[in-house]
Amino acid sequence: MTVLRVRFAETDQMGVAHHAAYVVWLEAARVEWMRERGLSYRALEDEGVSMAVASLEVTYRAAARFDDELTIHTRLAALKSRFGRFRYLVEGPNGDIVAHATSDHIATNREGRAIRLPRAWHDTLAMHLETDAGNEHQRTTP
Amino acid sequence: MTVLRVRFAETDQMGVAHHAAYVVWLEAARVEWMRERGLSYRALEDEGVSMAVASLEVTYRAAARFDDELTIHTRLAALKSRFGRFRYLVEGPNGDIVAHATSDHIATNREGRAIRLPRAWHDTLAMHLETDAGNEHQRTTP
Amino acid sequence: MTVLRVRFAETDQMGVAHHAAYVVWLEAARVEWMRERGLSYRALEDEGVSMAVASLEVTYRAAARFDDELTIHTRLAALKSRFGRFRYLVEGPNGDIVAHATSDHIATNREGRAIRLPRAWHDTLAMHLETDAGNEHQRTTP
Amino acid sequence: MTVLRVRFAETDQMGVAHHAAYVVWLEAARVEWMRERGLSYRALEDEGVSMAVASLEVTYRAAARFDDELTIHTRLAALKSRFGRFRYLVEGPNGDIVAHATSDHIATNREGRAIRLPRAWHDTLAMHLETDAGNEHQRTTP
Repeated sequence: MTVLRVRFAETDQMGVAHHAAYVVWLEAARVEWMRERGLSYRALEDEGVSMAVASLEVTYRAAARFDDELTIHTRLAALKSRFGRFRYLVEGPNGDIVAHATSDHIATNREGRAIRLPRAWHDTLAMHLETDAGNEHQRTTP
Repeated sequence: MTVLRVRFAETDQMGVAHHAAYVVWLEAARVEWMRERGLSYRALEDEGVSMAVASLEVTYRAAARFDDELTIHTRLAALKSRFGRFRYLVEGPNGDIVAHATSDHIATNREGRAIRLPRAWHDTLAMHLETDAGNEHQRTTP
Repeated sequence: MTVLRVRFAETDQMGVAHHAAYVVWLEAARVEWMRERGLSYRALEDEGVSMAVASLEVTYRAAARFDDELTIHTRLAALKSRFGRFRYLVEGPNGDIVAHATSDHIATNREGRAIRLPRAWHDTLAMHLETDAGNEHQRTTP
Repeated sequence: MTVLRVRFAETDQMGVAHHAAYVVWLEAARVEWMRERGLSYRALEDEGVSMAVASLEVTYRAAARFDDELTIHTRLAALKSRFGRFRYLVEGPNGDIVAHATSDHIATNREGRAIRLPRAWHDTLAMHLETDAGNEHQRTTP
């Protein structure tokens, strides 16, 4: 669970957080989710392995405003030797759903080639896998 | 058609354009697409009408690098009185597909309430609608 | 005092935090500094008053890296009826100085005209003024 | 001379371009200035040499708005074997001065150590040096 505040720089002239800011927040939430499970994404990158974003879906349900404290719930929804899928719920200050999202990732080396996740990473991730079946964070879009 | 260069600030430590930068480029391409059709998004905003992003999907196919000149092909794929859907193809310097994407929009007033698009806007947009049926820019993800 | 982590999106292909990210952090630190003193910048904006940035100076002393936890010390160094100056020290994880900075601000209304700060704001700010004379956070650049 | 349009994502809830966006624009202008003189900053980076930002000063004179076409005039104002200083004028759509700025740069290797600029780069830069003495783009701040 990641808690962050909407920064002034993240707002736009509509007076709400710009939709690209959410993409940055999801990434921060993903890195935090890993840290909470003993996985340092920084250390993974230092080894030359990245979890490159292959695709991204965001559904915006309500506006987030400057200085709002948002809570992001992250879940690993799928895992293969070279692939991972994360799902996210972004909650506003009153517990209202601000957005939900999914990101697909491919493990890559420094040249951008798909590779297997390091064994230790895969094993730890596997322990925290929560597939969509019967999950309360299940994606709600059709 | 929008042509832009990847800015240094848009790269990340993987040595490629960060995936959130694409979201900003798609928006710039959308605004440019409108301008080419005689529609000023700035003027629309000045009237108090926004085309808020309701959802977004991006599929990343190849990395974009610093200083790459990218070409973004934009198409209006669906239109209703309060709704529009844009599809995008991002091409790299050699014509390779870097990404494709879809964004859904709801017309809103300054309070964020869904409203009808101004008549003149809707009529102009309708003239440029290219639905998915038989369209070469058709979304290729499943 | 504001503590934040360098986000992945804030890095660039040099492998360090991009210099524009610091500008966003300084702003977040300034807002936090206000909150700690009972001043809600959000509430000020809601009243139609902004503290627009009139000028900015940043000196970069050491690189900040992805996932580094940074501590930002903020100080109000000057205050007039329509003007405020903040100074900042950004410390890295080991207490090393990553950057120091100064920002000058003009109070403005919604049309961007210079105005007086609301009385209550000015009075509270004045209580927390720490001028450069004899201050340990004094700007160290010539 | 670089011409760019203010992107929607670059605005904030004050309804103008956020002050951090300028920092990104200056960088784009600097890269473009180099390109116009036959210098590819991308190629320099590929060689492992960066022109790291050592300090930055921006003075904001007038607001830039969404969709404004800005013109940035860039000048190399100082040059040493490991150091360069750029000055910038940002002009708005009507030729009004939106901002002026200065950035100082240190040539660094991949480890962030200061090094000499490659000879060919230094020589080309030296041909385009326009020092402050008698220069019309001279910095106007005290």
